[in-house]
Amino acid sequence: PSRFKAKLITVAKSIKKLAQDDPRRIIHSLKVGLALTLVSLLYYVRPLYDGFGVSGMWAVLTVVVVFEFTVGQTLSRGLNRSFATFSACALGIGAKHLASLSGEKGEPIILGILVFLLAAASTFTRFFPKIKARYDYGILIFILTFSMISVSGSRVEDLLEMSYQRLSTILIGGAICIIVSIFVCPNWAGQDLHKLVASNIHKLATYLEEFGGEYYQNCSENEEEGCGGRDVSKNDKSFLQGYKSVLNSKNTEESLANFARWEPAHGRFRLRHPWKQYLKIGALARQCAYKIESLNVYIGTSDTKVSPEFHGTIQEVCMKMSSESGKALKELASAINTMSDDPFSSANAYVESSKTAANELKIALESASLNNVDIQAILPSATVASTLIEIVSCVEKISEAVH
Amino acid sequence: PSRFKAKLITVAKSIKKLAQDDPRRIIHSLKVGLALTLVSLLYYVRPLYDGFGVSGMWAVLTVVVVFEFTVGQTLSRGLNRSFATFSACALGIGAKHLASLSGEKGEPIILGILVFLLAAASTFTRFFPKIKARYDYGILIFILTFSMISVSGSRVEDLLEMSYQRLSTILIGGAICIIVSIFVCPNWAGQDLHKLVASNIHKLATYLEEFGGEYYQNCSENEEEGCGGRDVSKNDKSFLQGYKSVLNSKNTEESLANFARWEPAHGRFRLRHPWKQYLKIGALARQCAYKIESLNVYIGTSDTKVSPEFHGTIQEVCMKMSSESGKALKELASAINTMSDDPFSSANAYVESSKTAANELKIALESASLNNVDIQAILPSATVASTLIEIVSCVEKISEAVH
Repeated sequence: PSRFKAKLITVAKSIKKLAQDDPRRIIHSLKVGLALTLVSLLYYVRPLYDGFGVSGMWAVLTVVVVFEFTVGQTLSRGLNRSFATFSACALGIGAKHLASLSGEKGEPIILGILVFLLAAASTFTRFFPKIKARYDYGILIFILTFSMISVSGSRVEDLLEMSYQRLSTILIGGAICIIVSIFVCPNWAGQDLHKLVASNIHKLATYLEEFGGEYYQNCSENEEEGCGGRDVSKNDKSFLQGYKSVLNSKNTEESLANFARWEPAHGRFRLRHPWKQYLKIGALARQCAYKIESLNVYIGTSDTKVSPEFHGTIQEVCMKMSSESGKALKELASAINTMSDDPFSSANAYVESSKTAANELKIALESASLNNVDIQAILPSATVASTLIEIVSCVEKISEAVH
Repeated sequence: PSRFKAKLITVAKSIKKLAQDDPRRIIHSLKVGLALTLVSLLYYVRPLYDGFGVSGMWAVLTVVVVFEFTVGQTLSRGLNRSFATFSACALGIGAKHLASLSGEKGEPIILGILVFLLAAASTFTRFFPKIKARYDYGILIFILTFSMISVSGSRVEDLLEMSYQRLSTILIGGAICIIVSIFVCPNWAGQDLHKLVASNIHKLATYLEEFGGEYYQNCSENEEEGCGGRDVSKNDKSFLQGYKSVLNSKNTEESLANFARWEPAHGRFRLRHPWKQYLKIGALARQCAYKIESLNVYIGTSDTKVSPEFHGTIQEVCMKMSSESGKALKELASAINTMSDDPFSSANAYVESSKTAANELKIALESASLNNVDIQAILPSATVASTLIEIVSCVEKISEAVH
């Protein structure tokens, strides 16, 4: 029992953490409960119940499968489901009528062939990447409704009634979802995308701001040992790990951008907000993260001895490059956050000063006296320096894309 | 009309390309058609139809939503749906019985509260990453069935009948899906994962094998211009772009590994095949791809003049490192493909020789005379060299993980 208790406490803790990480999760759960309870009321309002009969369950079903975390996704599923049901009902009744012309024996054969062809063709269209991104669910519902209507074995008049009931209950269910999703503490996919991109850039900025201090502090502290000789394990420095989540952010960003396109104007976002621009900025941020990944190798490695002499020559300017580009990114992140469309004066200033630092580095390298220096000893510093130069140009690109 | 014709041709071409890229897509589409036609037959077999009545449509619905591209995903959805329906029916009938004890007026209120609580709690559990990965669909169906059963307004006896029909039709639909999916040209998620990981490593190998030639050939051809001075646009070299798809392979690999776990033993894969190992190899391959990404910057850039003198010193050994580690990866990829469990003698030999080359490089760097050399001029070569050293150690890790 004490073991059981321990397990229970672990579960309770993980629930608490999940809720604290994003309190909207709790609100979303309550919203789903609310929408379902609302749709259940349909059953208890007698006139409605008598009108819809068994089909009332389609409304329940619709709420469960359509209600999603973001408004955009809910809208996308709701609209997909409604249009797909409508067109499939129309086509299904047409197919039924066509098949019934060929007599009682031919009907099932013709219907079977039609179902086979339509299902195979629709399934194939789901492989088109663009269609999959936006209409996957609609096609699924289309196949489903078409087969249900055409094989149901009823007469055409009954089918009309059945289609009407299915469509109207789905519309009711979809409407409840969309209303609850928009008007009760909405989670906008667009806003999520906006925040995600800004926070990714902010993470890169934090890394770059800390990198200079982290990497060169080691050098000045234990100069006799060379640089990067500190024993602190990398994992202790959580601020240096933040950028890792940027590396694999592509899928999240793309799906959020997809859902954002379905959303109506809200808050500071107009209807035709340039969501594609976020994907562009996101891609550039990932490029920058790849470069940081190769920088990160040099923190905490102590297997190579680094020439302090050479190091001293470029330390100051490298630290400046790193911290200035970090500051530029931080300004860009907050510019995205506040959506200020001014000429980003402060961000631009930082970009400029990081570019100046990069040029200074180039000059310092040219003028550095390198008589009888062990190349192997300067290799790590040289690599760090050239990676930093690349990061500076990457930050400049991000700044242009944000602008 | 000529415009319409042109558009039609474009669509036809993209369909052809989609089918040629992966012919299994066509087979999958036909399989979905087959499964749907099979389940439709239920309606035409009179005794069955009379037995199931309207519920027969649940079988159609099940086939459409359960049938997925890979066997693992189909099994996962089918089993999730069956177990969720079973437990939700049981709980729903229990809830209905409980509520009916409190009289006609209290019943809807108690049921409403129960539906609200269960829906909210279940929705919240869907946020747990582990549960989301494996049981997301099951929880959805659980909420759906529970609300449908408990608000349906029928008596308990009718509910038993309804649950029995729903469960049995879902089992029939699920069974048809699983049978068609396994016995008609199966697409195993495990096999896909296996091939994906092997082909990713193969792509990295191709890049590394070509890199040396590509980068240093430029130097020897136009020695007076320094290295990397060729004007050929990067996009012409498709073999140098293959590694890019490895950068974002994480999500695909993870979902395939998830589905693979549901699959029975097939072909060369036992039941408890170590799928997690593939994720580990995949993560290492991504690490290696990040490093290649930073190498790739140096191909085709012509803005920095590189010292040919220094370049010559390390060219041979760098080319050797690159090509040997490329060969090692190629051997590893084919070892994964053939699942040969021998000591990977050839791969190991290549790994060893690339390590030797890395050591030679270190020695060459130490002994290189560097009097009055412009550091900026050697910076690109130095960075390439140190990145190659990292790649060699990364390849060694991959080799250990494959072993």
